Amino acid sequence: MEKLTIIKVGGKIVEEKDSLQAFLHDFAAIKGHKVLVHGGGRSATALASKLGIESVMVNGRRITDSETLNVVIMVYGGLVNKTIVAQLQALDINALGLTGADMNYMLSEKRPVEEIDYGFVGDVKAVDGSILADLIAKNIVPVLAPLTHDKKGNLLNTNADTIAGETAKALARYFDVTLVYCFEKKGVLLNEHDDESVISDINHAQFEYFVSEGIIRGGMIPKLENAFDAIASGVKQVIITRADSIDGQSGTKII
Amino acid sequence: MEKLTIIKVGGKIVEEKDSLQAFLHDFAAIKGHKVLVHGGGRSATALASKLGIESVMVNGRRITDSETLNVVIMVYGGLVNKTIVAQLQALDINALGLTGADMNYMLSEKRPVEEIDYGFVGDVKAVDGSILADLIAKNIVPVLAPLTHDKKGNLLNTNADTIAGETAKALARYFDVTLVYCFEKKGVLLNEHDDESVISDINHAQFEYFVSEGIIRGGMIPKLENAFDAIASGVKQVIITRADSIDGQSGTKII
Repeated sequence: MEKLTIIKVGGKIVEEKDSLQAFLHDFAAIKGHKVLVHGGGRSATALASKLGIESVMVNGRRITDSETLNVVIMVYGGLVNKTIVAQLQALDINALGLTGADMNYMLSEKRPVEEIDYGFVGDVKAVDGSILADLIAKNIVPVLAPLTHDKKGNLLNTNADTIAGETAKALARYFDVTLVYCFEKKGVLLNEHDDESVISDINHAQFEYFVSEGIIRGGMIPKLENAFDAIASGVKQVIITRADSIDGQSGTKII
Repeated sequence: MEKLTIIKVGGKIVEEKDSLQAFLHDFAAIKGHKVLVHGGGRSATALASKLGIESVMVNGRRITDSETLNVVIMVYGGLVNKTIVAQLQALDINALGLTGADMNYMLSEKRPVEEIDYGFVGDVKAVDGSILADLIAKNIVPVLAPLTHDKKGNLLNTNADTIAGETAKALARYFDVTLVYCFEKKGVLLNEHDDESVISDINHAQFEYFVSEGIIRGGMIPKLENAFDAIASGVKQVIITRADSIDGQSGTKII
């Protein structure tokens, strides 16, 4: 099988002109097939604020009412996605910007209202890997916005880490997939106050130990759970690293 | 060759919920391969206004400074395009939303500054019909936003009529193309005060006569020029009709 690298990069990197350009140069330099999954939360918050729409976050997730949904469609599906596509084209990368609605790539369902009503937020139900695999084999580079759809006419705001993980799993049938989560640190740290204390590799038993000891906590826990889930579903390796180190030579490898 | 219908619909129809739904039902009912090209100017003007950005139109074209460019990327490439895609998916139409930057589909160059500086407005230079033809043959329905790119990293605001015409010409090598321009009237009128005075068909000599007599004027002239240009480049027929009559049975046929 051919190699495929899937990079997930957060909003902070792709929303600032200089960091975006540097990142896209590094991304363009990755050999072989590749996919980019991006966020865009800061731009969404900024646009919402200009429009007088309050951004409400619960557990790091945006409460997405219908006005906020329009904002994230405009920012994630429009501004951030198409800006990346145009800039990759300038680097001779044949990018194609997609949401989950495009070609029915990623189907989700609106999260049920329990304690919290997240609004138009989608939990992924099904991914059609074949359609992306065909395009990738033709040297198309998909650029995925964090939006899915319910096939009832609604777009749904969906976590970009989840989209990256589900994409990796769906494409593991077709490629040797390396999934890279970009993060503000160099990797998973043993000591959160020491940026150099990167854990070079981690297996599931070690992960559980580190969590029980409180060494790994907060937002890193779901990120690593996604990573182990991807490995269990046939993804070859998952790397957590900094956006300036996506060459696969550094960061934390999940094994 | 198989048949392909390309429908260009303006902003007014696709920006209002009820008219959009009715239109998409009619569009979904068209037999065979199809492509949708949409506008979105009213939503762009509305968003710009909310953001305190003035919309300046010259000869019916939007002066597109960098702030306005971001607005049209968000509205055309994001909100309008992805809303249409999601609603077509609900109608079992396998839609794929695209700008000219996606897969390098439509390349343009920034319009040179002469009397008027239109800003980030693109004039089409090259269209890659093969990539769309492949997708269409797989029953994908491209939904094209009025944005192109210059392959230097810039998206450019581009007239939707032009995108429809250039797409029709590029796909005429692969399909028997019918290009339908939706318009607020039932067709080209002999008497602008009589909505029923539709000219059922028109050739180039008749067009020149009607223009010289002042019967055809204003925005209809470039629309018809585009249509004759498409016919000269191998497009089988061009129809100008109302958005509620896209079944090919009415309107003005350009021959």
